[in-house]
Amino acid sequence: MGLLIDIGVAKTNKYASRESGDTVEVVERPTGGFSLVLSDGQGSGRAAKTLSQLVCARAVAMLKDGVRDGAVARGVQDALFASRHGQVSATLDIVSVDLRTQELVVSRFSELPLLLSHEGEHELVGWGGDPAGRYGLARPLIIRRLLDPGLRAVVVSDGIASAGRRCARPALDLLAWAATVPSATPAQEAADSLLAGAIGRDGDKPSDDMTVAVVRIDRHDGETGLVRRLSLRVPVP
Amino acid sequence: MGLLIDIGVAKTNKYASRESGDTVEVVERPTGGFSLVLSDGQGSGRAAKTLSQLVCARAVAMLKDGVRDGAVARGVQDALFASRHGQVSATLDIVSVDLRTQELVVSRFSELPLLLSHEGEHELVGWGGDPAGRYGLARPLIIRRLLDPGLRAVVVSDGIASAGRRCARPALDLLAWAATVPSATPAQEAADSLLAGAIGRDGDKPSDDMTVAVVRIDRHDGETGLVRRLSLRVPVP
Repeated sequence: MGLLIDIGVAKTNKYASRESGDTVEVVERPTGGFSLVLSDGQGSGRAAKTLSQLVCARAVAMLKDGVRDGAVARGVQDALFASRHGQVSATLDIVSVDLRTQELVVSRFSELPLLLSHEGEHELVGWGGDPAGRYGLARPLIIRRLLDPGLRAVVVSDGIASAGRRCARPALDLLAWAATVPSATPAQEAADSLLAGAIGRDGDKPSDDMTVAVVRIDRHDGETGLVRRLSLRVPVP
Repeated sequence: MGLLIDIGVAKTNKYASRESGDTVEVVERPTGGFSLVLSDGQGSGRAAKTLSQLVCARAVAMLKDGVRDGAVARGVQDALFASRHGQVSATLDIVSVDLRTQELVVSRFSELPLLLSHEGEHELVGWGGDPAGRYGLARPLIIRRLLDPGLRAVVVSDGIASAGRRCARPALDLLAWAATVPSATPAQEAADSLLAGAIGRDGDKPSDDMTVAVVRIDRHDGETGLVRRLSLRVPVP
């Protein structure tokens, strides 16, 4: 029985907006494993999208070269600061399943919490940081856990965290949500569930771009042949 | 009613081999749309994997910078030729859904055919080329089609094309397979079906790394909110 890496992403645009300022990429690590990169660019519309694309492009290029995650996060932050003089910023989350070190590693520039679950325990970690690009020599927050079946990390963009605010509803309680979604739930299903909850909280008209990314570790039975699957479905506005 | 971009990939390793020499990446294009990159490195095992990873890394970095596909394919080929002097080669397929030009563009260095389907017509195109890295100034084969619901492109790696050879069975008939899989079939389901057929042909012990990538265009009804989904499931050997 080996490990199963299960990644699911669900995202939607701000209501009546054609472009989402959030960008997500998932790439294979040259030394084994996968990395998910999420960036939410400051502002909205085309400028925010271009910014989050640039941030993800640089992170992906470095990750594919085999650069260690902490250096990738620092490099992206410093390059953004150098080119835009601290006047624009973007969140950055790099969630890596590193098969070489057998660790889940999250490196992030974000003020929002990361939701970590393991064996029925749920915790909010790594929050309160600054976004990338605002200060010189800023440092990412880095969280590490040994890979273990049942481990799950959930990263959300600002639109999820602030869902309901426009309707004067309380913020989504990520810990309460996590307690209702068992660790065996497929990542895509978990992501869909949280996104649907946030959209509903905004009265079905998202007041910001919304992204949920779930990375979970499970076991596989190894009996059905080891088939890797990647699926992407994007409805174009 | 807008377009739905639907991409599905299924891959497996050579029997009893821990590493697949095939690498697949899917990235978002900075000017709108998505690109799938598939590379099958010469040989097998770790050297082939490292090679296909390098090829994909370079292609992904250029695509994320917004470089046009033909230039990306030429750049990857030339860089590989320059660094390895024509002594190693790798196939390269870049399948792009380009929302800026509203085209499906395939740029490839491969001797295997690409399977294109549209409105019940199936054709094998773009075959007979050399892999990347073998000759100086080699040119990619480029295929373009206007984006249209019902359009489907299927790219396979060598292990699919040669399935059954070891058991002295005839090669998979991609055109016959395509005729049995309607254009409305989800990309992941279509990829799974072709991979299963190839594995079966090899007596359930794949004699080479096998990858199937399906990129199809459909319509969406636009009623259920425009949620984008990305799912990756990887059982680790």
